[in-house]
Amino acid sequence: MFKARFRVSWSDTDAAGIVHFSNHFRYVEKAEEELYNSLGFDFVSIFKKYGFALPRVEACCKYYSPLRFNDIIEVRISVEEVREKSLRYKFEIYNVTADKVAAEGHIVAVAADIKRGKSVPLDREFVKRLLKAAGTESEG
Amino acid sequence: MFKARFRVSWSDTDAAGIVHFSNHFRYVEKAEEELYNSLGFDFVSIFKKYGFALPRVEACCKYYSPLRFNDIIEVRISVEEVREKSLRYKFEIYNVTADKVAAEGHIVAVAADIKRGKSVPLDREFVKRLLKAAGTESEG
Amino acid sequence: MFKARFRVSWSDTDAAGIVHFSNHFRYVEKAEEELYNSLGFDFVSIFKKYGFALPRVEACCKYYSPLRFNDIIEVRISVEEVREKSLRYKFEIYNVTADKVAAEGHIVAVAADIKRGKSVPLDREFVKRLLKAAGTESEG
Amino acid sequence: MFKARFRVSWSDTDAAGIVHFSNHFRYVEKAEEELYNSLGFDFVSIFKKYGFALPRVEACCKYYSPLRFNDIIEVRISVEEVREKSLRYKFEIYNVTADKVAAEGHIVAVAADIKRGKSVPLDREFVKRLLKAAGTESEG
Repeated sequence: MFKARFRVSWSDTDAAGIVHFSNHFRYVEKAEEELYNSLGFDFVSIFKKYGFALPRVEACCKYYSPLRFNDIIEVRISVEEVREKSLRYKFEIYNVTADKVAAEGHIVAVAADIKRGKSVPLDREFVKRLLKAAGTESEG
Repeated sequence: MFKARFRVSWSDTDAAGIVHFSNHFRYVEKAEEELYNSLGFDFVSIFKKYGFALPRVEACCKYYSPLRFNDIIEVRISVEEVREKSLRYKFEIYNVTADKVAAEGHIVAVAADIKRGKSVPLDREFVKRLLKAAGTESEG
Repeated sequence: MFKARFRVSWSDTDAAGIVHFSNHFRYVEKAEEELYNSLGFDFVSIFKKYGFALPRVEACCKYYSPLRFNDIIEVRISVEEVREKSLRYKFEIYNVTADKVAAEGHIVAVAADIKRGKSVPLDREFVKRLLKAAGTESEG
Repeated sequence: MFKARFRVSWSDTDAAGIVHFSNHFRYVEKAEEELYNSLGFDFVSIFKKYGFALPRVEACCKYYSPLRFNDIIEVRISVEEVREKSLRYKFEIYNVTADKVAAEGHIVAVAADIKRGKSVPLDREFVKRLLKAAGTESEG
């Protein structure tokens, strides 16, 4: 499991006084970015060189309690499943300020050659390091 | 089924040149808002008077093809299930420009008294009109 | 002057119950996009072919009255100044629902060759058509 | 001067591969929030109790160089002017990764009683502490 902490910004909230439900997915992606950064995985240079990206093919979230402005959240993600060309992350958004789980869900991303519009195999070395840092049994 | 058309804005895209996956949920919510507007359902005044809202408790999306800048999309939503205090919408985001389905999924919303932090029964008259406008068998 | 109407979405608001101030700039850009669309100006294909874009080098807004959920707004933009490689738009965001001016400001955009990171001259034919559609003296 | 560091998220970028110009204002507001947090200024409780907020009445930014995905930025804000009911912040967004200034500008915020829709005097103690932490001559 990999963990990353963020603070809820004012611009993340909506007129109900809580974080807009679409932003939970952005928090999860930010945690995923931190995970790659922690691995020295050069997402940007790979994207620039090969037109590579990890577009999402599925994203689901269950919302248990609202997130409010300035709440500290901890996003906990782990790789639930690895296939040849795709990864399935499960995530939990824990509201540290309120001491309760705010949401949980999963995201499936595919390794894609953006320019040719087709999926490609995941790099094995990358997967290995990813599982070490964010496997379901690893400790973040 | 209820249908609403939008155009993809530049600010909806990300560095992969496609719409960021979190924005699909915003498009669906915009269609939901248009649906309520078409019913004369005064979402704002109800929210102001009673602290009422329809927070999401679940949101899922499967992505089939990317949306690009300036694409015309048609969001098709219908009420899949009505419970005492919640609604389940299913949606499809159709890319009119590319003539293909871009995404589909569902959203579950709960009628909530924001101030007291608890769910409340849906108004029956509202549900009736909603099903007429956006039932799974109605034509948008 | 060119005019485009939009409706304020729930996701545009923040916890103060009003549109977040950063979103006014997005509304203005949406109006600019509609202006280009009305001219048959193929922004996307130009971007794809030449790596061309119109990045902003300056953006200013004065806020006079808040925009709320579901308000209908009319964005009025006109080309205030044309230089060899840049355009200055002035804009007004009129709140049709509240019948008052919500904001006004200006945006300066530069014609840029993104790949080489340098500004390039604006196409003269494009400027001519732009001034016809959105000059300070033209009627939208 | 007060300084806060952030990392550019994927969702902050647009199809030109750079941070959308509206997001610079969000970064500045995030730094402002960190400033208030550092002062123990309880923005949320004040908002809840008194309907108090600091809505923006003016926001301007000049863009000097693009921000890209994963760039580390340092937002430097200082209180340029204090009036009875308003504050003027100037800001600089420094791109730490690229070692250059990305943008600079200013924001004017008014102390407002949201419920009655009118401006109110700024708390003197708050201003004093604010100037100590983020005055133009203080060191962040």
